[in-house]
Amino acid sequence: MIQKLADKIKATHAPICVGLDPMLDYIPEHILKKAFAEYGETLEGAAEAVWQYNKGIIDAVYDLIPSVKPQIAMYEQFGIEGLKVFQKTVEYCHEKDLVVIGDIKRGDIGSTSAAYAAGHLGKVKVGGNFYAPFNEDFVTVNPYLGTDGVKPFIDICKAEKKGLFILVKTSNPSSGEFQDRLIDGRPLYEWVGEKVAEWGADHMGETYSYVGAVVGATYPEMGKVLRRIMPKSFILVPGYGAQGGKGADLAHFFNEDGLGAVVNSSRGIIAAYKQEKYASFGSERYADASRAAVEDMIADIDGALQAAK
Amino acid sequence: MIQKLADKIKATHAPICVGLDPMLDYIPEHILKKAFAEYGETLEGAAEAVWQYNKGIIDAVYDLIPSVKPQIAMYEQFGIEGLKVFQKTVEYCHEKDLVVIGDIKRGDIGSTSAAYAAGHLGKVKVGGNFYAPFNEDFVTVNPYLGTDGVKPFIDICKAEKKGLFILVKTSNPSSGEFQDRLIDGRPLYEWVGEKVAEWGADHMGETYSYVGAVVGATYPEMGKVLRRIMPKSFILVPGYGAQGGKGADLAHFFNEDGLGAVVNSSRGIIAAYKQEKYASFGSERYADASRAAVEDMIADIDGALQAAK
Repeated sequence: MIQKLADKIKATHAPICVGLDPMLDYIPEHILKKAFAEYGETLEGAAEAVWQYNKGIIDAVYDLIPSVKPQIAMYEQFGIEGLKVFQKTVEYCHEKDLVVIGDIKRGDIGSTSAAYAAGHLGKVKVGGNFYAPFNEDFVTVNPYLGTDGVKPFIDICKAEKKGLFILVKTSNPSSGEFQDRLIDGRPLYEWVGEKVAEWGADHMGETYSYVGAVVGATYPEMGKVLRRIMPKSFILVPGYGAQGGKGADLAHFFNEDGLGAVVNSSRGIIAAYKQEKYASFGSERYADASRAAVEDMIADIDGALQAAK
Repeated sequence: MIQKLADKIKATHAPICVGLDPMLDYIPEHILKKAFAEYGETLEGAAEAVWQYNKGIIDAVYDLIPSVKPQIAMYEQFGIEGLKVFQKTVEYCHEKDLVVIGDIKRGDIGSTSAAYAAGHLGKVKVGGNFYAPFNEDFVTVNPYLGTDGVKPFIDICKAEKKGLFILVKTSNPSSGEFQDRLIDGRPLYEWVGEKVAEWGADHMGETYSYVGAVVGATYPEMGKVLRRIMPKSFILVPGYGAQGGKGADLAHFFNEDGLGAVVNSSRGIIAAYKQEKYASFGSERYADASRAAVEDMIADIDGALQAAK
């Protein structure tokens, strides 16, 4: 699956993923109205609106991009109905041949991590049958519990040829509170980065490892160091756009082969029609606004990569 | 809710919670057979078996204990059908007046943590209506992202009078890989513990804070230090029983008022009938075996607390 991600990035010249993190605030009025008319102002109605909104965006951008990253919290907040739409969104993205990165940030001890890994990346056995309940291609994992929290995910990735992005340095303002603290003179995130490289060495694709890392676009200097510490790991880079990261900040996250990073934008793409820059599309054509924002993001990042050469 | 937990602990003399972490392996044959006969060897069949198994245990032990801790991973592995049973289990435990600690170990940046908090502890707004999708009383939270990952949970706890247990020192063997690393001469878990105390000071119940901590029974000496660092925080203590923790190890986790900790046992209770000690109950009477195991656990912990006085 890491090879599929690399191949699709080469084919599209777009080392990006679109964050499918729908909030009801983002969804155009006409979609909300229709969903509420059909299902009422209920969790089912909210979920239907999210689904129609997602589908519009996916249909408009799938040919431009290699991957999407649905953030499960935005679905889980609507309970069972929301999670059904998470599942449906993953399936639909697979139909469009997109690589799906489930942003689930799970992580627990042994058998519990194994249960998460089975449910999201692998298969669960019921009597004589096997089922793949959520079936993402990659998931994000929290490293706080150490190797025995991560290992069960790696084992299932090996069996299924799927992958992980481990949280190393997150994009949020307070990420430094623990992640930047110095241990033997080096920040915690570097120690976590070293572990990612170690875990990843044990599970390689052709040129990149199936075990990647999350490093926020908002911390480009740290990205530079982590790029060196984890040369074989893909870096998932959140924080582009709405959180403040720009193309020019991102060159350090890539290797010289132009690969090694996938930059995520969520709000900046899916709610593009709410920005002044794309306002002329109007809310009815929100998906076309998202397509224009994807094209601009690709140009910004590709430009920065060319300039860095 | 923290006061309800404290009051129920005093009333039952049982500072414990039963971990509802069902694995298909634990479920007696007669329950599996019936569920599969009705729904086939499907995710729905697995979920039905989990539900009947849980219900049997809850009915057998609810009058002895203050709280339960369902581990969501064990439900999430069965996809939507599993999560429906998670929800149904939470509801049923509320009917039995149990305090429900959702072991979800979520944690993300700002608006994403807010979505998890709304879905699990609070309410989500759809049009003019509010819904409480999962409605636990407490949840566990991962601190790796720092204050802005935790704050949205605290805000919702304040509004809903609910609570948190933040992972500080987990019970698994490799928890030390990052958590024990020294920062300015003190391990990371102590720094996290200090943050828990700081976050908790801002959100107090009558005598204890709504912000508690997770500290594994397998690390009693660390529990002693953390007890002092977080005097007003309840400590959720996993790792009793199957993971190796014993009553005699646990006295340090409590304050002098006999409160301040709630000890979890999962497999040791819910699969008690598989242990030699309780084998005479047989699999048909698995729930009675669980009740006997709860009684033994209470005696073990109460004995240790009396001996420590």
